Amino acid sequence: MSSHSETLLDWRARITKKQQQRASFPPAWLIDAPPEHVLNVQDVPYTCALLTARDIEITDTTDIDVLLAKLAGRQWSSVEVTTAFYKRAIVAQQLTNCLTEIFIDRALQRAQEVDDYLKATGTVMGPLHGLPISLKDQFAIKGLETTMGYASWIGKVADSDSVLTQILYECGAVPFVRTNVCQTLSWGETFNHVFGRTTNPWNRYLTAGGSSGGEGALVAMKGSPIGVGTDIGGSVRIPSAFCGLYTLRSSYERLPYCGAVNAQEGQESISSVPGPMTNSVSGLKAFMKAVIDSKPWEKDPLVVRKEWSEKEYQLSEHGEGSKLCFAVMWDNGLLKPHPPLWRAMRLCKKALEAAGHTVIDWEPLNMMEIFKNAESIYNADAGHDFREVCKESGEPVIQTMSPETNKHELALDEPLVRTVLGPEQKMLTAWELWQLHKEKRALRKAQLDHWQATANRTGTGRPVDAIISPAAPYVAPPHGLNNDYFYTTFCNAMDYATSVLPVTFVDEELDRPAQPHEFYNHHDKANYELYDPKLFHGAPVGVQLIGRTQEEEAVIAMTEILDNALKACKAAEGK
Amino acid sequence: MSSHSETLLDWRARITKKQQQRASFPPAWLIDAPPEHVLNVQDVPYTCALLTARDIEITDTTDIDVLLAKLAGRQWSSVEVTTAFYKRAIVAQQLTNCLTEIFIDRALQRAQEVDDYLKATGTVMGPLHGLPISLKDQFAIKGLETTMGYASWIGKVADSDSVLTQILYECGAVPFVRTNVCQTLSWGETFNHVFGRTTNPWNRYLTAGGSSGGEGALVAMKGSPIGVGTDIGGSVRIPSAFCGLYTLRSSYERLPYCGAVNAQEGQESISSVPGPMTNSVSGLKAFMKAVIDSKPWEKDPLVVRKEWSEKEYQLSEHGEGSKLCFAVMWDNGLLKPHPPLWRAMRLCKKALEAAGHTVIDWEPLNMMEIFKNAESIYNADAGHDFREVCKESGEPVIQTMSPETNKHELALDEPLVRTVLGPEQKMLTAWELWQLHKEKRALRKAQLDHWQATANRTGTGRPVDAIISPAAPYVAPPHGLNNDYFYTTFCNAMDYATSVLPVTFVDEELDRPAQPHEFYNHHDKANYELYDPKLFHGAPVGVQLIGRTQEEEAVIAMTEILDNALKACKAAEGK
Repeated sequence: MSSHSETLLDWRARITKKQQQRASFPPAWLIDAPPEHVLNVQDVPYTCALLTARDIEITDTTDIDVLLAKLAGRQWSSVEVTTAFYKRAIVAQQLTNCLTEIFIDRALQRAQEVDDYLKATGTVMGPLHGLPISLKDQFAIKGLETTMGYASWIGKVADSDSVLTQILYECGAVPFVRTNVCQTLSWGETFNHVFGRTTNPWNRYLTAGGSSGGEGALVAMKGSPIGVGTDIGGSVRIPSAFCGLYTLRSSYERLPYCGAVNAQEGQESISSVPGPMTNSVSGLKAFMKAVIDSKPWEKDPLVVRKEWSEKEYQLSEHGEGSKLCFAVMWDNGLLKPHPPLWRAMRLCKKALEAAGHTVIDWEPLNMMEIFKNAESIYNADAGHDFREVCKESGEPVIQTMSPETNKHELALDEPLVRTVLGPEQKMLTAWELWQLHKEKRALRKAQLDHWQATANRTGTGRPVDAIISPAAPYVAPPHGLNNDYFYTTFCNAMDYATSVLPVTFVDEELDRPAQPHEFYNHHDKANYELYDPKLFHGAPVGVQLIGRTQEEEAVIAMTEILDNALKACKAAEGK
Repeated sequence: MSSHSETLLDWRARITKKQQQRASFPPAWLIDAPPEHVLNVQDVPYTCALLTARDIEITDTTDIDVLLAKLAGRQWSSVEVTTAFYKRAIVAQQLTNCLTEIFIDRALQRAQEVDDYLKATGTVMGPLHGLPISLKDQFAIKGLETTMGYASWIGKVADSDSVLTQILYECGAVPFVRTNVCQTLSWGETFNHVFGRTTNPWNRYLTAGGSSGGEGALVAMKGSPIGVGTDIGGSVRIPSAFCGLYTLRSSYERLPYCGAVNAQEGQESISSVPGPMTNSVSGLKAFMKAVIDSKPWEKDPLVVRKEWSEKEYQLSEHGEGSKLCFAVMWDNGLLKPHPPLWRAMRLCKKALEAAGHTVIDWEPLNMMEIFKNAESIYNADAGHDFREVCKESGEPVIQTMSPETNKHELALDEPLVRTVLGPEQKMLTAWELWQLHKEKRALRKAQLDHWQATANRTGTGRPVDAIISPAAPYVAPPHGLNNDYFYTTFCNAMDYATSVLPVTFVDEELDRPAQPHEFYNHHDKANYELYDPKLFHGAPVGVQLIGRTQEEEAVIAMTEILDNALKACKAAEGK
C-alpha cells in the first residue's frame, strides 16, 4: 500500500476530501434528483433524461445470458454497455448514495480494450466478456483506494488486484464501480462516516440492508448487471431480500477472497464469502461458473479444488430435479416473520406444488444454541479489531445504524443475544475459542443428522432437497431497525449454500397484521409491534433457498426451478 | 460416555488395571519373545511358531488389491484373514508394544458376519469387504474405551462409532485392534503413561515415530494390512517413514474426523487429518476411494463435498502422467538431512529420470516463517488443553520422549523453535490467533505463487507436478531424539496432500557421514553430530511426495509412478 501518509489529518477533513473526490463525475450526469420525501425512486432512470432509449434497453436487460450473448455477438459493444450502466449507476448514486469509488475513464478504457480484443481476434476474452461488474468496497483494484468505510483507510492505494478482481479481468469483465458498506461490515444496514448512508430505492425511508447494501441499492436500480458482495452473517442475502434481488451465499472458500480487505481478518471460525447479486437467476450461474472454471485455487490457496459440476447442476443428487421435496421454515422459533413473508412462502409452496414438487414443513432445531454460538464467535475479540482500525484515525466506532434525523418512532428493544459491538467485553482466549468450535461442530453434526433424517417423510427417498426460509423476519425495515440476522446467520454457521430470490412485494391489502402470538422473547414482541402494512407497502419480499454445504450448483438449479414455478403461477393468474 | 466413574482412583492404579485388561489375549498367543537386546524383530513372526504357513501367506500379502480380491472371491474368508492378522498383531504387540485395545471375539464375530453376508447374498458388503483394519486410539468404536493414552480417559466407553469407524463398517471392513499414541498426540514418537512406549520393529533401540507410532510398528510387522492414523504435523508420515510404510496425509477435511477423540479439539487453524498407513501403494487408493465413495459429507458436516475423481487419478491436471516434472527438496535450509536421505532422493531422481520424467531442484521459501507460524498456532493455548486432561487424573504432562533407561548418549539441543509443550506460556487471545491466521494465509499465498512460478523451469508448461522431500532430516532416531517435525509440518501448514513411500534402507557402507557444512543453527549442528552409520544401519528410509491441496487422487497416482520407477530401477540392478 502506498499514499497512506495522511493519518495525522483530522478524520473529518479526510472524509470531506474523499467525498469531493467521489463527486467528481461528469456534470452532465448530474440529475434533478427528487426531494427526500419521494420514497420510491425506481422510475427516475426512465424520467431523468440522462439515459437514452438505448441505455434503457441495455440496462433493463436483466437476463445476464442475454447481455453476454449481445456482447459476444457484437450487437452491443462493451463501451456502450459500460457507459449505459455507468450512467444508471450515477443516477442510483444520486438517489441512494450507493457508490464509493467512481472511475469512469479507467472502466471505459478497459471496455475499449475488451472490444478491441473481440474485434481483433474474433473471440471473446472470457465467459464474462465485456460485462460491467460492480464490486463491494473490499475487492481491491490495483491503483485505487480500498476504504471499506474507514476514515483511516482513505488513501490506502492497492498495489495489486484482489484474486477475484484478477479473475474477473481474465474472464473479460469490466469492473466499473465500487459500492458502499457499513463500518465494520458487521451490521445488516449500510452506513459509515466516510460515505454516509445507502438507502433503498424502492423506499428510501427503508434500509437497503447490509453490509453489501451499496450493491443492493445499485443492482436494484439496474445500475449494475452483477454486483459482488460478501456475506458472513447475511451480508449479500439481507440486501438482496430487501432490494428484490437474486444472490448466492456460497460455502466457505468456494470463491476466492484472497487479496480483498476485510473486517476481523484472520477470523476463520465462520468465514465471510463473496457472492454475486443480480436481477435474474441466470446471473448467479454465469458468475459462479465463470469464476470456478478459472480454477481460483491456482491463485487463492484457500479455495476448494472443486470444479464446476454440470452434473450437480443437473441435480444428480436430487433425482435429476424431476420431483423435489422442499421444506418451508415458516418460523425459526426465535422471531416470527411478518405477514408478507408468510404470504411469500405460501406463494412458493403453491408454485412448487403446481410444478409437481412436494412441500413439507421444516422443523427448526437448536436455533438459539446456533445463534449464541455464532454471535460468540463474531464477538471473540470483543470488538478489538474494529476499535484498532478506528483508533488509527480517531473516528468513533459506530454504535447504531439509526439515523440522526427522520428516525422511525419505534426502536427495537435490546437484540435477542447481543448488539453487534456491545459494551467492551473480555476477549476470548484461543482455548475458549476452541471450545466454541467444538460446540459449533456438534451443532453442525446435529443439524446434518436432523436433515438426513427427513428422508423418512419426504416421499422421495431422499432427505429434503432444500429449505425455503425468510432471509429476515421482516422486509426492509426503516433505517436502524434491522437488528436480527439469524435467519441468514444460521446458514453461515452451518455453511449452507444458500440463495435469495424475489417473490413478491408487500401489499397493504393482502398483508394484514397477524393476531398476536405467544411471543418467544422480548425481541419477538418488539418485532411483532413493528409490523405496519402501510409502512412496508411496496417493499420487495424475498426468500432464501437453503441447500447443503458446497452444493452451489444444485442450489442455483433449484433456485431456477422455484423462480420458474413462481413465474408460471403469476402468468397463470394473469399478473 | 458411560462407565467413567473411577476418576478418584489413583492414576497409577487405573493404568495397572488397564494394562492387565490389555494383556488378556489367549495364552496360546504368547510367544517366546527375544530379549531386549535383539533389535530387529522382523523375523519373529516367521520363527515364533504361532503363525501357520497359511497365516504367513495371508499376512505377507501386502498388496491390498490382492487381499481384497481373495476375500471377495472367497479364496480366503474374513475370519481366517482376521485371525491371521490378529495373531501377527499380537506378536507385534509382544515385540513393540503397539496395541491399546484388543477385542478378538468381537472382531471375529464381525468377520463371521461379513463372511455370512457374502455367502448369503453372493455379493461383497462393500469395497473393503472382510479386510481387517487397525485404528489409532482416537477412532471411537461403540462399546470400547477410547483412552488416547490418558489415564483420565480410562473407562470412557464410546456411545457410538466415530464417523470413520461407521463408514469402514459400511464398507465391509473389520476393525480389529486399536493402536498406541503419545500422550497429547503432539510428539513425533509414541509413549504414554497408560500403555508405555512403542518401539520400531526394524530396530527396537529406535523410535517407531509418532504420534501414530502404534500403527507404524504394527503395520511394519504386517500385523495389519491397513492402519488408520492421524496427522497434524507429521503423525502418519513420520512413523511411516521411520517404519518403511506407505501413507497419505490428505488435505483438511477430505476424510471424516467427526466422532473421533482428539487433543486440542476445536483447534481449526491447522487441522489434524486421518490417514491410511499400509505396506503397498494399492492400500492408499483402496482406502481413500472406499471412504470418499461412501459420501462422508453425509455423516460429517466438515468433510469437503468432493467425489473421488478418477479423472484426477488419471492425472488430468498433470499431462495424463506421461512426462512429469518433479522437484527435489534436498534440504529445507533449517536442518540438513542425513546421508541416507540424500541417497534416497538421488535414487528417486535416477528412477524418475529413467522412467522419462524430469527432476529439478525445489527452492525452499519462507521455511522458518512457516515453521514459527505453525508452532505458534499449535501452542496458542500454551498447553492448557493437555494440562486440563492430565489434571483430571493427576497424571503428569510428559515433558520428554527420552526413555529412563537405555537412553542414547546424545541429546539434541533445545529444538529450533520451541519444545512441544515448553514452560507454561501465556495463552494467546482470539485476536492474536487471528493475526497468526493472517500470517498463515499470506505464507500460503506466497508458497502457491512460488509453486506456480516453477512453470517457467519445468519444461512441461505446467508448474512442478510434485515435490520429493525427506519426511524428517533423519531416519528413525533413538527414542527421545525425534525433535524436528518441520519437513512434515510444512505440508500441514500449507495443507498439501502428501504421501510417504519407502525407498531403501540405511547401509553403513553406502551412507558414510558427510563433511560438516556451515550449520544453519544450533539444532542443525546437533543433528549433524547425531549421524552414525552403524547406529542407523538397516533402518528404513522413506521420502515424502508433496502435491497440492485437495489433490489426493493425483498424489496417489504420482506415488504409484515413483514406486514403480524405484522398483524398475532395483529390478534393472538385479536387487
